[in-house]
Amino acid sequence: MDIAAFRAALGDIPVQDNPRIVQQKSRDHYWYSPRLKQQLENVTAQLVVSPRSVDEVVTVLREAFKYDVPVTPRGAGTGNYGQAMPLSGGVMLDLMNLNKVIKIEQDRVRAEAGVILEQLDEQTIHAVNGELRFHPSTYRMASLGGFIAGGSGGVGSIRWGGLRNFGNILGLKVVTCEAEPRILDLRGPDILKVAHAYGTNGIIVEAEMPLTAHYDWVDMMVGFDSIIDACAFAEQVALQDGLLCKEISPVAAPVAHDYFNRHRPYIRSREQSVVLLMAAPAAVPALVDFVAFHEGDLLYRADTLTPEEKAKLPPIYELAWNHTTLRGLKIDPTITYLQTQYPDLAHVKWAVDTFGDEMPMHIEMTRFDGRVVFSGLPIVRYSSEERLEEIIRLHEENGCLVFNPHRYTLEEGGMKRTDRAQLQFKKEADPKGILNPGKMIAWDDPDFDFESGRTWLFTGLYTLGGAAE
Amino acid sequence: MDIAAFRAALGDIPVQDNPRIVQQKSRDHYWYSPRLKQQLENVTAQLVVSPRSVDEVVTVLREAFKYDVPVTPRGAGTGNYGQAMPLSGGVMLDLMNLNKVIKIEQDRVRAEAGVILEQLDEQTIHAVNGELRFHPSTYRMASLGGFIAGGSGGVGSIRWGGLRNFGNILGLKVVTCEAEPRILDLRGPDILKVAHAYGTNGIIVEAEMPLTAHYDWVDMMVGFDSIIDACAFAEQVALQDGLLCKEISPVAAPVAHDYFNRHRPYIRSREQSVVLLMAAPAAVPALVDFVAFHEGDLLYRADTLTPEEKAKLPPIYELAWNHTTLRGLKIDPTITYLQTQYPDLAHVKWAVDTFGDEMPMHIEMTRFDGRVVFSGLPIVRYSSEERLEEIIRLHEENGCLVFNPHRYTLEEGGMKRTDRAQLQFKKEADPKGILNPGKMIAWDDPDFDFESGRTWLFTGLYTLGGAAE
Repeated sequence: MDIAAFRAALGDIPVQDNPRIVQQKSRDHYWYSPRLKQQLENVTAQLVVSPRSVDEVVTVLREAFKYDVPVTPRGAGTGNYGQAMPLSGGVMLDLMNLNKVIKIEQDRVRAEAGVILEQLDEQTIHAVNGELRFHPSTYRMASLGGFIAGGSGGVGSIRWGGLRNFGNILGLKVVTCEAEPRILDLRGPDILKVAHAYGTNGIIVEAEMPLTAHYDWVDMMVGFDSIIDACAFAEQVALQDGLLCKEISPVAAPVAHDYFNRHRPYIRSREQSVVLLMAAPAAVPALVDFVAFHEGDLLYRADTLTPEEKAKLPPIYELAWNHTTLRGLKIDPTITYLQTQYPDLAHVKWAVDTFGDEMPMHIEMTRFDGRVVFSGLPIVRYSSEERLEEIIRLHEENGCLVFNPHRYTLEEGGMKRTDRAQLQFKKEADPKGILNPGKMIAWDDPDFDFESGRTWLFTGLYTLGGAAE
Repeated sequence: MDIAAFRAALGDIPVQDNPRIVQQKSRDHYWYSPRLKQQLENVTAQLVVSPRSVDEVVTVLREAFKYDVPVTPRGAGTGNYGQAMPLSGGVMLDLMNLNKVIKIEQDRVRAEAGVILEQLDEQTIHAVNGELRFHPSTYRMASLGGFIAGGSGGVGSIRWGGLRNFGNILGLKVVTCEAEPRILDLRGPDILKVAHAYGTNGIIVEAEMPLTAHYDWVDMMVGFDSIIDACAFAEQVALQDGLLCKEISPVAAPVAHDYFNRHRPYIRSREQSVVLLMAAPAAVPALVDFVAFHEGDLLYRADTLTPEEKAKLPPIYELAWNHTTLRGLKIDPTITYLQTQYPDLAHVKWAVDTFGDEMPMHIEMTRFDGRVVFSGLPIVRYSSEERLEEIIRLHEENGCLVFNPHRYTLEEGGMKRTDRAQLQFKKEADPKGILNPGKMIAWDDPDFDFESGRTWLFTGLYTLGGAAE
């Protein structure tokens, strides 16, 4: 790569080469994983480029192609799988300056990739009382493009399933990395070529998303004596088609008490498991009845708090999804987590019985192909890599999916198989293979055997060292 | 009963005693069933009373109680189970004059019982771009109160489940039938005391309903070579959490061709089975892709029709639910129908294989306790009551629920067991048992054995004769 020539060719596109800032911008939230933390700690780009328009993105990619500079796109860097870690150095393509909302219609919005999700919602709520179907727990930081490129669902998945499901993304504008980059408008099944591909095969610069009705969601927390009771209640709420909820998450004791500092005054004891809820206002009275019916302990409902009480509490979605882990790491930096899926309550019970307090359970109720399932983000009291692998193996042997968050490749963190549509599109859109290198095994090592039990390691990682070119 | 004294006590509340009009107002759509048609043909009230306010309803019920006059409430009379048939004569309580919309908020509406559903939606759409979660296929005629008292779901049930599910009704105002009628505001689980009780234990005069986002739903029709292919496609659409549909209904050949006159030009042949769809505009492109993926034949999508073409077609929901049967009856008055539920596609296939063209299949995809199921409203080519009973028996023996639409009682048309909350409430709210007599077996014959295989017959029916007092 010739990064000096590359830089010279960028004209007035903003760049940043202060090593401390470049290193800071070369980090996402990979450090939730002790394994990734150790593997990726030396990773850094040499330059950050912050284009302000699609045309400038085209320029960056044209020159990167010309000068063989690896390009790793980045939104807010809130991913936990190392999605935005520049494994071959080169340039961080910071897309947060592309933050225009292009068009708001009654049932959809088109915006640039760098818009922050909460700010996008503020605009669509104001214009048409609509909001995005889902968002990550990093709603107040994360960008639209980053969510699409690196996320798979989140708050709202109990209603709308996964981000990659038919109809949850209406269109993507993508820039290819070629001698003369193309700007492609992807629609329909073509969207799946680049959604959740970590930016390995094109740079998402715009997205068109469906809107759903905005509600002033009411945060609620319900206590139970056991995590299984909490999960049973959560499942029943999820199955109540008339109760509109955006978030349903059971969290095992002692996580709620130990990690949810600001909410601790509402939690009775260290032994209490809880269910976190976001309910539409019209659903709240019925939900309160439902809590009583299930002998739950209604710990608080935000709509009856005083403004002073409310001001002290973060929104409940900032206790959920991977914010549970984040809050845990602040209290106890030795913990980590897993991403699992339990097809039914019996499988959750198996995991709870098998791992006990070594793996305090944290479930996100989601819909998966139309069915309510238990998506797990359990806390893991980390002892060794071997034990973590064993926990994963036991899950898989017992019919529970694991999306391994201790791997930085698309395949290992996902379904452990090649996505042929994504691979084929990379051949067309990134023929030199310089977009987010090392994240797609199918590109670097087409013969890798996912059944081998081996972990795949990108060779570029070994040679990178510091920021040496 | 002393109907003359009753009438004299009503003051200026509008009444109607023209026998032809009274008889016409004493009819609902019970005649979809050959059995109910024969049983109920002589049923008529002696008087129709049309109060204009809740106070006038109170007056009617006070005087009815005093003079022992049976009272059968009625909305638009679009029920198919004989819900509004006055089995003991007396007075038809016509509630269509209570049609005020009381309050529209962002996420809910409160209105009087007699408002027509389509007219209610027009007002809420105008005010807050919101609409009811569901409606029957008789949307343009049916009243809010009638839907709640006699209906169980409909268009929208694929998203929201059943009308009686937690959260689908927020509140009901009910007038009791006592010496001094009480006006009760029921909320939460108390709603279930009177929802779908046919007005046997209180008169619903107001309802508060949640609103959902309004969309300009796009009617679509997709063709398949077999009803099983149509059902398989319909199930997959229903399971796509990202595809927002309000209606998904597979209809077997030759029903679509033979009964859907106005849509016939779009149907290729008598052998084509179809799926009827109402999709949110944002879902249409993905749905078109999905049709192609399933090798369906996209027969039409309303959003690409010319205004002239569109003007010729009734809305697709008027082909669905019991409008399928209604359209069939217009072409072939000898047919009837059943209401069934198939837990999965294998059970649908069993029914299709077993009954063939004797029972052309018509499915409504619905959610039932959070799961996508096949609700059946198959056409039945009626030969005899014995054969109809046999078809029902075979369904039940093969694990398929039947909600028998050839019975006029709550229990026999429903879950075939006593609803203790409804019975208890009748004891409190209608101590003389004069509200919609003969519809609640638990009241008239607490010891009736639902397992006996016998049909329950209200003794009042035998003595009624014409309109004799």
